[in-house]
Amino acid sequence: MKIDVLSLFPEMFHGVLESSILKKARDKGAVDVAVTDFREYADNKHKTVDDYPYGGGAGMVLKPQPIFDAVADLNKEGSKARVVLLCPQGERYTQKKAEELSKEEHLIFVCGHYEGYDERIREHVVTDEISIGDFVLTGGELGALVIIDSVVRLLPDVLGNKASAVEDSFSTGLLEHPHYTRPSDFRGMKVPDVLTSGDHKRIAEWREEESLRRTFLRRPDLLENYELSESQKKMLNQIEKTHRSDV
Amino acid sequence: MKIDVLSLFPEMFHGVLESSILKKARDKGAVDVAVTDFREYADNKHKTVDDYPYGGGAGMVLKPQPIFDAVADLNKEGSKARVVLLCPQGERYTQKKAEELSKEEHLIFVCGHYEGYDERIREHVVTDEISIGDFVLTGGELGALVIIDSVVRLLPDVLGNKASAVEDSFSTGLLEHPHYTRPSDFRGMKVPDVLTSGDHKRIAEWREEESLRRTFLRRPDLLENYELSESQKKMLNQIEKTHRSDV
Repeated sequence: MKIDVLSLFPEMFHGVLESSILKKARDKGAVDVAVTDFREYADNKHKTVDDYPYGGGAGMVLKPQPIFDAVADLNKEGSKARVVLLCPQGERYTQKKAEELSKEEHLIFVCGHYEGYDERIREHVVTDEISIGDFVLTGGELGALVIIDSVVRLLPDVLGNKASAVEDSFSTGLLEHPHYTRPSDFRGMKVPDVLTSGDHKRIAEWREEESLRRTFLRRPDLLENYELSESQKKMLNQIEKTHRSDV
Repeated sequence: MKIDVLSLFPEMFHGVLESSILKKARDKGAVDVAVTDFREYADNKHKTVDDYPYGGGAGMVLKPQPIFDAVADLNKEGSKARVVLLCPQGERYTQKKAEELSKEEHLIFVCGHYEGYDERIREHVVTDEISIGDFVLTGGELGALVIIDSVVRLLPDVLGNKASAVEDSFSTGLLEHPHYTRPSDFRGMKVPDVLTSGDHKRIAEWREEESLRRTFLRRPDLLENYELSESQKKMLNQIEKTHRSDV
């Protein structure tokens, strides 16, 4: 996969791209990531990339020309990249979108910073507008990094056993059960007996029940789309009773 | 505000902390951010921070000792920090939580990476478990950076006029209207006439209507909690008619 990022703050990317899974994926050749300062594409003498908004008002607006030309240049070898704009108005990012983007050959991320985007960029250059959540960030850079991390770890051969083996919350559809490691008694705080019992059947049941409990208590919305087995229905019933009487 | 980050990948933070608003906020003394590798706190000879899970299974689990001791040390000057754990099971991060955290004096972020957390960390050390969204990341580092950026920009004196003046989507309750800047005709793509008309009343109306339209089309959930004025109700009614007949 090829990933291009257009940003006025390319230095924001170095630490993350050069660490951990992203570094390994790049070293292995699974992904090629390049960050370009789109100011380089500005065709005016002062390399200006933003200007005042038509109709007045506070704040600056990113001009169409540098971004149009940068994207055209990055696509020049005939690739038809998905062009992702990070913005609060975008579609909410989810694991499903990560899976969709991981099947592309070329992604281009457009990151604004303080400024708004000229609407013609949205209409004519961008294929996807994405928001990572309902909170205000200084720019699109952190959103781009979040998407890049979540997409690259889905590429073939990127994750070793160590990481891929972790059962994550969004692949099973339920939140994870609690984990414990040594010591079994840490400063008086003990591991539940069942986990040190060696009884694998009871351990599996305990984990299933705790996973259901945590999902019920923290993210009941996930249960709406989850198909419960008969035994899970009974467990959940019991969990609901327990926590109702707690109230 | 003092912010401490506990991470096994401190190098992931440098680029972002040394750019843009975060750099300015640190230079001004509005925030003091320190990133600590909690491996330094491991009290075993090999500086091990994780171990196999009780009860078996794949994946490693972060041991309680290094994180307990690191947090105690960072709190040693009597501060009672909010201790934020980044994890998929956490509360969904929103702007409201950013505002809440921005009022604290001391925040500590605990970032795992691949591994699970020993449950005793959640129960006895952590005050807030936060998830930035329903997608799988390699570690908590990007989540911590997202929260730090969104919190620090709310601190007094951090944002200059330039950035603060931008009307953002989550402060008005509606998505932003489209923005345009020069040229008015960019390669045949034109700015709407109203914006170059000089008629401020019409411009304000157009913006209000486009803001409502975009919210209706992209984030109708935001309208449920938004109190519409009488004129906005009429606008929205018209917008609904237009887009129904489009279908």
